Amino acid sequence: MKKALEQLQPYLDKVFSLLSAKTLFEWDSQTLAPSGSQDATTQIIGTLSDEYQKVFLDKDVQACYEKCKEEMEQGMYSLNERGVIKVFGKRLEELTKIPPQEFREYNELASRSGIAWVKAKEDNNFDAFAPFLEKIIDFKKRFASYRAKDGEELYDVLLNDYEEGFGMKELDLFFADVKNVIIPLLKKVTKETSTIDKSYNEQTYSIEKQREFCDFLATYIGLPKEYCVISESAHPFTLALHNKDVRITDHYYENNLESAMFSMIHEGGHALYELGVHDDITLTLAGGGASMGMHESQSRFYENNICKNSAFWQPIYQKLVSTYPEQLSSLAFDDFIRGINKATADYVRTEADELSYSLHILVRYEVEKMIFTEDISVSDLPRIWNEKYEEYLGITPPTDTLGILQDTHWSWGEFGYFPSYAIGSAVAAQIYAHMQKVLPMEDLLLEGKLSVIRDYLKEHVHQYGQTKTTNEMLMDMMGESFSPKYYMEYLKNKYEVLYHIST
Amino acid sequence: MKKALEQLQPYLDKVFSLLSAKTLFEWDSQTLAPSGSQDATTQIIGTLSDEYQKVFLDKDVQACYEKCKEEMEQGMYSLNERGVIKVFGKRLEELTKIPPQEFREYNELASRSGIAWVKAKEDNNFDAFAPFLEKIIDFKKRFASYRAKDGEELYDVLLNDYEEGFGMKELDLFFADVKNVIIPLLKKVTKETSTIDKSYNEQTYSIEKQREFCDFLATYIGLPKEYCVISESAHPFTLALHNKDVRITDHYYENNLESAMFSMIHEGGHALYELGVHDDITLTLAGGGASMGMHESQSRFYENNICKNSAFWQPIYQKLVSTYPEQLSSLAFDDFIRGINKATADYVRTEADELSYSLHILVRYEVEKMIFTEDISVSDLPRIWNEKYEEYLGITPPTDTLGILQDTHWSWGEFGYFPSYAIGSAVAAQIYAHMQKVLPMEDLLLEGKLSVIRDYLKEHVHQYGQTKTTNEMLMDMMGESFSPKYYMEYLKNKYEVLYHIST
Repeated sequence: MKKALEQLQPYLDKVFSLLSAKTLFEWDSQTLAPSGSQDATTQIIGTLSDEYQKVFLDKDVQACYEKCKEEMEQGMYSLNERGVIKVFGKRLEELTKIPPQEFREYNELASRSGIAWVKAKEDNNFDAFAPFLEKIIDFKKRFASYRAKDGEELYDVLLNDYEEGFGMKELDLFFADVKNVIIPLLKKVTKETSTIDKSYNEQTYSIEKQREFCDFLATYIGLPKEYCVISESAHPFTLALHNKDVRITDHYYENNLESAMFSMIHEGGHALYELGVHDDITLTLAGGGASMGMHESQSRFYENNICKNSAFWQPIYQKLVSTYPEQLSSLAFDDFIRGINKATADYVRTEADELSYSLHILVRYEVEKMIFTEDISVSDLPRIWNEKYEEYLGITPPTDTLGILQDTHWSWGEFGYFPSYAIGSAVAAQIYAHMQKVLPMEDLLLEGKLSVIRDYLKEHVHQYGQTKTTNEMLMDMMGESFSPKYYMEYLKNKYEVLYHIST
Repeated sequence: MKKALEQLQPYLDKVFSLLSAKTLFEWDSQTLAPSGSQDATTQIIGTLSDEYQKVFLDKDVQACYEKCKEEMEQGMYSLNERGVIKVFGKRLEELTKIPPQEFREYNELASRSGIAWVKAKEDNNFDAFAPFLEKIIDFKKRFASYRAKDGEELYDVLLNDYEEGFGMKELDLFFADVKNVIIPLLKKVTKETSTIDKSYNEQTYSIEKQREFCDFLATYIGLPKEYCVISESAHPFTLALHNKDVRITDHYYENNLESAMFSMIHEGGHALYELGVHDDITLTLAGGGASMGMHESQSRFYENNICKNSAFWQPIYQKLVSTYPEQLSSLAFDDFIRGINKATADYVRTEADELSYSLHILVRYEVEKMIFTEDISVSDLPRIWNEKYEEYLGITPPTDTLGILQDTHWSWGEFGYFPSYAIGSAVAAQIYAHMQKVLPMEDLLLEGKLSVIRDYLKEHVHQYGQTKTTNEMLMDMMGESFSPKYYMEYLKNKYEVLYHIST
């Protein structure tokens, strides 16, 4: 008897290939495509997207999927096969519960809204963007209502899209810890670090040398050249076609040493995840990272837990200094480490340090929650935003450009996405705490044995792609599901040691 | 009443988009993709190719196309619409006349054969490649026989794929002229130019400066940055997604000044063609160049007729010299012009100069003709190849690597392709002769008004894409279809003037 999954296979291959083509177009448009090509290329991508959707709307395909689900419930499939069926089902649900006409209207709106946001941010004019945001929110509420299970909150539907098992119930607990621990900690740390001299970072660093050193860092943490290329774009990002084709971009600023280095390590963490996905699932819908939060946990693990660590820099600090002798030879190692870990409350999320970062997310989470659970007017959002920044970070954004207009996410309808960033940091800290128990982490860093760390993550996280949830992976790795306490302990301990603060 | 073409439209969009995705994957694999990505990516491209083919194999689509053809014969469609229907019909014929199973076997063979050729060329071992070539030829003969109309010669079927209206009858006449005119001319020219000192070309030229100067050349001939990007790859090539997204690559050698410059101009000619295709057809199957020969005519027009011309260099030679003062300041302008036009008989087609080039094609044409019209053994081919080189160019290749194994085309089954290169040179000369009558070509070059030349070609050639054949375009432009005489006159006149040879 032929299993239903075998019948579904050609359709799975088709959607995966169409998705890959769209991924390549996205890479291309952000790295190389001529500036005037966008309008025509958008039509090509639109047709590929339509073909992608048609597969899911095909009644035979849907029947075949239902059969797969039945067989899955009868225990007929392996972990990898279940992963593929599960992801296919998610996409199917997203695409079939929303009437195609409304989905088209929404996509058109989102595209115009994205453009309106760019202009509104440039002009510091929230009022010009507000009508778009209002409509986007209406659509997102309606779409979530189509998809909500009995009694499910709309915001939970959206949160679940980015991170399964992390609804408002879990996030309220998490962000309570963020409030209770990080707000007072940041105040203390800021006081201590306000006098740290970071002028070394703003000296002139040749782009060519930065490229070379970042390339060295990429190799150092274990990115294989034959499967991973590095390119440049306005904003650094990572993207993968499969586990043998992963692409990173970086962006180099002549007057900023740290930016490109930490971006490279951050994107390198994302890349290692994609490179570590098992061969058996890399060419399926279950390839790629388990969730936004899990992906972010890997980038932040490398960027913060590893690369902001003094032990990471000890074996390679001389190399950094000899790359830039004029700028760095008089900078003591400890001053460099304190410099890269300087923490302060500021307006912009993407430029935030490790400690204040989650407070930026806290603001966004609370605002999003109000949007979806209370009847709040869009015109009140800038005021609410600014009040929360004052309350949590002690600063009031001087403009909406530096306030509520700073991020692109909402203009594209990405509500429920922001919490993943903070979950990522917390999961990274949890994994790090566990790895300190099972591996001699400090020694590995001091000896430059980054491959041991990479291999451990590959074995326990990366290889599974989307076949396990974040909580399943944590449970299998350390016998415990997600817990914010590791993150809080990590931060307290880190800044205690660095700045001799009692917490 | 709805026209059949409207019903066919979604399928046309689908095949065009799938083709575009394949084009982008091809670009990517040759410019950036990580070296180890090929195997997995090949699977993705394979699925996209299958989807592309399925459209043509769909009985409803075929019925719709037949309806379009009927309506077209009733005069219902515009030139552009007829172009699209015609190209769709060509692809349909290619894909439906060959049994899918045989086509798959052939593709698999071609892929292995390509790899075998690379190794055979490296090892100078024709015998290792011969069994593949034999099978490839068998397939091509069989496929051509499926497609041949009543009494049509197999080789004519293949020739027609690359250049409609240029079968053996026309090419025999053309190559008779090539023999009668170019062989004696090359002998005379070689004698005169053997003492020309080209040592300037082999000095050290910084890659960075070469990039800058080639970039200047690209802009000078009229390539717009917003629609055309320049990248690098092992072998220069041009590729287009549509008329607002055209890509060129170049390759820079530190000890060769001319290579990258003339490659840039050659690819620039291809690019101007793609950029000039009319907006109405650029997102259709009839976008892109009319034929291989017509495309090559545009690259050669720029590379040879324009860029090897003294009038082209007069306004910019000082810029070239001041880019490389150490290397060029003592080189007289006339010596540079004689240098870039040096002609000589040598073994390798891709390195051949303007004058000897067509003799390389003559050899290939005659060998291909023998393969498809006589019962010739593959094992005899190296001997025949070498004899023809001796007869026409006066040299015998010392190895098969420098002889019959030099080109990749046959390993992939591309028989009938080579003649397009020579047709391209001849069409370029014909267009150039006509443009000298209707435009002050020399003045335009002396004044650097390359845009006038570009616009003329856009109006009379580029905009039509594949909606007209080569002969139709020539006829509409100058009231005369293809004639080799302009090419012969151009070459004779050129070398007479350059080297004071009487011909």
